[in-house]
Amino acid sequence: MYLSAAITDGAMSVPAVLLMLAGLLAGAKLLGELAERVGQPAVLGELLAGVVLGPSVLAVVSPDLPVIHIMAEIGVVILLFQIGLETDLRRLMSVGGVAATVALVGVALPFLLGLWAERLLGLEPLPALVAAAALTATSVGITARVLSDLGHLQDRESQVVLGAAVIDDIVGLIILAVVARLVAGASLSVGSVAITTLIAFGFVAAALIAGRLLVPGLFRFLARIGNEQTLATMGLVSAFLLATIADAVGSALIIGAFTAGLIFAPTPHARPIERGVVRLGHFFVPIFFVSVGAAVDVRSFLDPRILLIGGVLILAAIVGKVAAGFAPFWFKGRKLVVGVGMVPRGEVGLIFAQTGLAAGVLDVGLFSAITLMVMVTTFIAPPALKALLGQAPRPGVPGPDRPGELVSEV
Amino acid sequence: MYLSAAITDGAMSVPAVLLMLAGLLAGAKLLGELAERVGQPAVLGELLAGVVLGPSVLAVVSPDLPVIHIMAEIGVVILLFQIGLETDLRRLMSVGGVAATVALVGVALPFLLGLWAERLLGLEPLPALVAAAALTATSVGITARVLSDLGHLQDRESQVVLGAAVIDDIVGLIILAVVARLVAGASLSVGSVAITTLIAFGFVAAALIAGRLLVPGLFRFLARIGNEQTLATMGLVSAFLLATIADAVGSALIIGAFTAGLIFAPTPHARPIERGVVRLGHFFVPIFFVSVGAAVDVRSFLDPRILLIGGVLILAAIVGKVAAGFAPFWFKGRKLVVGVGMVPRGEVGLIFAQTGLAAGVLDVGLFSAITLMVMVTTFIAPPALKALLGQAPRPGVPGPDRPGELVSEV
Repeated sequence: MYLSAAITDGAMSVPAVLLMLAGLLAGAKLLGELAERVGQPAVLGELLAGVVLGPSVLAVVSPDLPVIHIMAEIGVVILLFQIGLETDLRRLMSVGGVAATVALVGVALPFLLGLWAERLLGLEPLPALVAAAALTATSVGITARVLSDLGHLQDRESQVVLGAAVIDDIVGLIILAVVARLVAGASLSVGSVAITTLIAFGFVAAALIAGRLLVPGLFRFLARIGNEQTLATMGLVSAFLLATIADAVGSALIIGAFTAGLIFAPTPHARPIERGVVRLGHFFVPIFFVSVGAAVDVRSFLDPRILLIGGVLILAAIVGKVAAGFAPFWFKGRKLVVGVGMVPRGEVGLIFAQTGLAAGVLDVGLFSAITLMVMVTTFIAPPALKALLGQAPRPGVPGPDRPGELVSEV
Repeated sequence: MYLSAAITDGAMSVPAVLLMLAGLLAGAKLLGELAERVGQPAVLGELLAGVVLGPSVLAVVSPDLPVIHIMAEIGVVILLFQIGLETDLRRLMSVGGVAATVALVGVALPFLLGLWAERLLGLEPLPALVAAAALTATSVGITARVLSDLGHLQDRESQVVLGAAVIDDIVGLIILAVVARLVAGASLSVGSVAITTLIAFGFVAAALIAGRLLVPGLFRFLARIGNEQTLATMGLVSAFLLATIADAVGSALIIGAFTAGLIFAPTPHARPIERGVVRLGHFFVPIFFVSVGAAVDVRSFLDPRILLIGGVLILAAIVGKVAAGFAPFWFKGRKLVVGVGMVPRGEVGLIFAQTGLAAGVLDVGLFSAITLMVMVTTFIAPPALKALLGQAPRPGVPGPDRPGELVSEV
């Protein structure tokens, strides 16, 4: 028996949050199934569910509500932890040069293309800079989820995309720090940017080395005193801890979670941890994708100025990233797949836009145009990748691929 | 890449919540394992972890933080949904008379005993009434979890305890409504109490009938279009919906969740739903028990007046409930097990105390004494039941019983 209404989250009571979660999960699952029925990755349906359930259409889901926002963040942390668990660091390193080239060209090219086009359209320098910065992002979460939905996570091209997207995320943090200072009117020193860069890349290296030294002994001990569920819980605890540490040293939550997955991946505990975490992911991960979809304001479709600027941004966004896929000319894989895999901006692009809006550098029109660019790049990538890659046959799992099943549970 | 610090829950950033969850889950798992090593149910370790991590000792976990509170509520909703899934309504009904007798005597006896003793100690009528009302509660969550931890959920005595605890929860809602009016200084009419009673019991009956009519067709359809994961998600969605409806009509979230479990229990979808929900429970349910433990203020151990009143309340609480177990004299099972199973007050008792404190009817001393009573009754029940019942052998699962595994996953 609970006085549930007595403790509320902002204006929301516990029953109201439960109702919102029920609508969110049902919508994500049903549109996810529908997406698969028409041959698309489930994540596309979840993003669409977010648009429909979000504030601009049905207003069932409020992505800004703290409890929903935190659960969405837990979702993307769990997703990146799962992706890390399935990633072979040596294979990732073997395409490291290719991935770094794709990432850096994929940052520079959309930025310069966007900046040039925006100046042609008559935008002021500072807003143009922020809009161009938003073009540099890649949403590793959406790309990884699509590749996983399609059963292509272990392809050579997917490893390049994954590596490049992670590097892009780290570079994006640095760009965001720079942009945040610029919009705040602060000056920039080469030294502070260099330190931010060093920390961002240094964290992953330090965590991997420390993790490889500490984890085997600790988890052998846990495996002796506990059961599979103990391992799964402590694996998740490790991911949460590393995410927090990553954030504290100036990197990002999801970089920490991905690194935690990389640490466990070669150990015998990876499978038990994965089995324990995958069903948690079924609950939390859709909250993340629905929240990303819910940030879309469909009214921005109706304003011609927004459509014009948005269209230009979309062109720069797609051309820049697809061309970046062809930058590592020595790579033997399918370069178009790599380029298309880098296209979705997802939540990362939105964070740039929100930073600019909050600082007063972007007006609502330019903000909406960036949102439109984020939405279109995010929504075209899943069907485009599906068309390029097709559905990989997965041994032991009958029927169409299952949404959210990052791990085959056989 | 996330500006996670930008959106906070009250004063808490996303990384801070992740860190709190990491500490909570690690503490619950390790003390849960430790409890099992010394032959106790895992839930005892989780409650102790709450005391240690809570505000009065280490202050790692803040149970009042909205996001933690909501996750704890999701935990107890999932727990009662799982218990419902494992409950055979016909078997529950077959002990219905016994359960109702235990519940009603178990409300009346502690109430009258407590009221009499408190008046002897010189308490004012209104505070004495609230304190006596807190004695009537039974925490169905804690009792059900202990019986499940010990592998005795299907015993005849356990069915009686479960039925009585659910009835007690419904009766408790009515008493709480009455108490809330009394402490607010409002008058009481027999009619309004009768309506509250009718709604509380009517909800379960109406939900069961409607559910039995609607669920089979709907879920046959879902089983055709989706996979096991679809069923699990939609089962959970149903539990959340029914919990919300229960709350809206004046019943309680957990009554709705338990009823949802009862609806699915006889269908072929119960096992797939259970498999999907059990791992979610591993995450959310400990948050609930740690939160209950974290509400304990260990400083109340040091005040002699609180210890005296608390000791009297504890006596009334234990004697009243144990005696209630012997009330259905025609019941052939072990009556002591039933009585002891009704002893833990858990979070339900705390809600009474908090209502009284918030209304200014209870002073801090009496509030602490009630908290002490809640704590002692909650902590002695698990080892007492363990001593009475022992550990049931569970086929197919080697080694000691596993914490949180409400369902054997074979």
